Amino acid sequence: MKMWEHGHQAADKQGYKHYMLKEIHEQPKVMQDTLEGRISQTSVLPEILGSQASLILPHVEQVHVIACGTSFHAGMVARYWIEKIAGLPCMVEVASEYRYRDVVVPPNTLFVCISQSGETADTLAALRFARQAGYLATLAICNVPGSSLIRETDLALMTRAGPEIGVASTKAFTTQLIALMLLTLVLRRVRQAASRGQDTCEQRIVSALHALPDKINRVLALDEQIEAYAQSFADKQHALFLGRGTQYPIAMEGALKLKEISYIHAEAYPAGELKHGPLALVDKEMPVVAIAPHDDLLEKLKSNLQEVQARGGQVLVFADGAARVGAEMGLAVLHMPEVIDELAPILYTLPLQLLAYHVAVLKGTDVDQPRNLAKSVTVE
Amino acid sequence: MKMWEHGHQAADKQGYKHYMLKEIHEQPKVMQDTLEGRISQTSVLPEILGSQASLILPHVEQVHVIACGTSFHAGMVARYWIEKIAGLPCMVEVASEYRYRDVVVPPNTLFVCISQSGETADTLAALRFARQAGYLATLAICNVPGSSLIRETDLALMTRAGPEIGVASTKAFTTQLIALMLLTLVLRRVRQAASRGQDTCEQRIVSALHALPDKINRVLALDEQIEAYAQSFADKQHALFLGRGTQYPIAMEGALKLKEISYIHAEAYPAGELKHGPLALVDKEMPVVAIAPHDDLLEKLKSNLQEVQARGGQVLVFADGAARVGAEMGLAVLHMPEVIDELAPILYTLPLQLLAYHVAVLKGTDVDQPRNLAKSVTVE
Repeated sequence: MKMWEHGHQAADKQGYKHYMLKEIHEQPKVMQDTLEGRISQTSVLPEILGSQASLILPHVEQVHVIACGTSFHAGMVARYWIEKIAGLPCMVEVASEYRYRDVVVPPNTLFVCISQSGETADTLAALRFARQAGYLATLAICNVPGSSLIRETDLALMTRAGPEIGVASTKAFTTQLIALMLLTLVLRRVRQAASRGQDTCEQRIVSALHALPDKINRVLALDEQIEAYAQSFADKQHALFLGRGTQYPIAMEGALKLKEISYIHAEAYPAGELKHGPLALVDKEMPVVAIAPHDDLLEKLKSNLQEVQARGGQVLVFADGAARVGAEMGLAVLHMPEVIDELAPILYTLPLQLLAYHVAVLKGTDVDQPRNLAKSVTVE
Repeated sequence: MKMWEHGHQAADKQGYKHYMLKEIHEQPKVMQDTLEGRISQTSVLPEILGSQASLILPHVEQVHVIACGTSFHAGMVARYWIEKIAGLPCMVEVASEYRYRDVVVPPNTLFVCISQSGETADTLAALRFARQAGYLATLAICNVPGSSLIRETDLALMTRAGPEIGVASTKAFTTQLIALMLLTLVLRRVRQAASRGQDTCEQRIVSALHALPDKINRVLALDEQIEAYAQSFADKQHALFLGRGTQYPIAMEGALKLKEISYIHAEAYPAGELKHGPLALVDKEMPVVAIAPHDDLLEKLKSNLQEVQARGGQVLVFADGAARVGAEMGLAVLHMPEVIDELAPILYTLPLQLLAYHVAVLKGTDVDQPRNLAKSVTVE
């Protein structure tokens, strides 16, 4: 493996103990940067994908999203968005699986690939396959201008996260989500062109995007509480992360962060699958993290979580201020700012990043350069 | 949770120590039963889906597969088959996710649901949603005649696994795979009807299906070797299962079995994702199981597996007799009978069932009734 280098003069830590912590705290700014010049007060600006896009996008009937690791989790969130908000069938797959099987490409399918570096070997190989496979067009979500991914795709939407030094991706992920939401809104608008007029859905989401960096700052202010919760993970070898819908990939991303930098075996499950197997695992040695913006998920999980509690398992819930079920059940609840459902996956990423960070610091691992991992996987 | 009952006179253990072991050993027979009257020497017989199918299937342009737990893993295998063999785009999703999101249904999509009991609450709810959602038709793969799933679908293909008592599903899973392969071949034939004549692909697969029960018996004869490997898992808290393509869902199923009955935190990864995070976890406390029918997967993983070995991690490889890479690298290799690629996921399920069984026996858990789990999840 070779590490992809962000030039030799990588930014310093600016007073933070680790690059990862610095990069977590940069998120309000880089999310703002990624939105800059791309949205008005009420809508996504035309041509954020370049002038060529208006010739291509009206023909899109389906979307395939391909990526690896953390970028794959961003793609999984986008799948829920693209189906719900843009009304297009969307398939998402890890690049290393996609490239080695016989994929059937439906007519007029847009190929979207996501990579921070734009040099991820499996993602690039998937793109090169896709260019021969009869797709309508290819589009990259990427953080590095001039990278192979950008050079070889028809369309691109750059994230503006700046150089990311910590191996565990943080700000690259949340800016990918911002870019993917912009793409979703563009796809929605193209499809709604016939019935032009006010699109209250787009207005609502764009308005919430404007407010998002401030909310992120409010989540960053919860750092001390999250650090306190981290204590109960530091002596554990396992953890289970549960989410539903767009929060399932966020649970996966939270589990991956904990794996990568604290070496705790964290695994994510779509909450409804808990009773189909993994519930057998849970005891006091396996804390459970539930990402449950509203009470409905906890209501459904109530009987399962009671079993977890009965066996001494700890449950930590990330929920919005209005949620009551967690507290009623005597679960530890971190109260998050309220946010519209569509943007909740972005907001709820932050406490999971901070949790993984503090657990790793408590365990004394090499936070910015975890064992066995390279920043960008440019070999297979 | 309520346990679905297979009548009161459930078969006894017939000399086996546990129902699960009995059910593992029944697989050659119940696979044969599931094939019975459905294939000739060289092809799938017409109308195995009933006479109505010939009116519906020629219109199928895409397939959605919905299930939970082990049945979901069968669906994941089927996705690879349906895209590769039948040439139809196929999406697979867990029922509890599917039913709570806004799914976009492409025109002429066939809805396939899989459940051993036919009463799985989330799967039934997904089916009831699907019946209103504009699908071309609905089809059940199910083991219980007269179940809700069978009553409420347009088409059905029964598995003939007989009553399954062990909570951890074994023979229900492999017969689901058989049924899904038959469905795949039916879908392929409908699409090839125009260019009628000898289909060597269908002939090759059907001929291999005839030979499969004998091969399963040869794998069952490896039991002592597998029991010996189980020793090295019994004192572990973790395990990582790796596969690629159709073997990735088999890795998931192998990990789930180990979770369910031995309470070891086993997790599966598509092999190519190892370097995007989970490699940080691996040390001597986390054995790695690689399902690698041929050497190509191991060749790709070579540098990763060398890191695993360098850190004291054990690697157990399930590979066919011709594989050399594992032995060269000094890995423990269980040599499996050769089988065509399309049926390899069925064959490679067996040693993983036996591995989980023997580990659970060594750990002294309640194999047939693991803690916290019900046989069929008929509540949400």
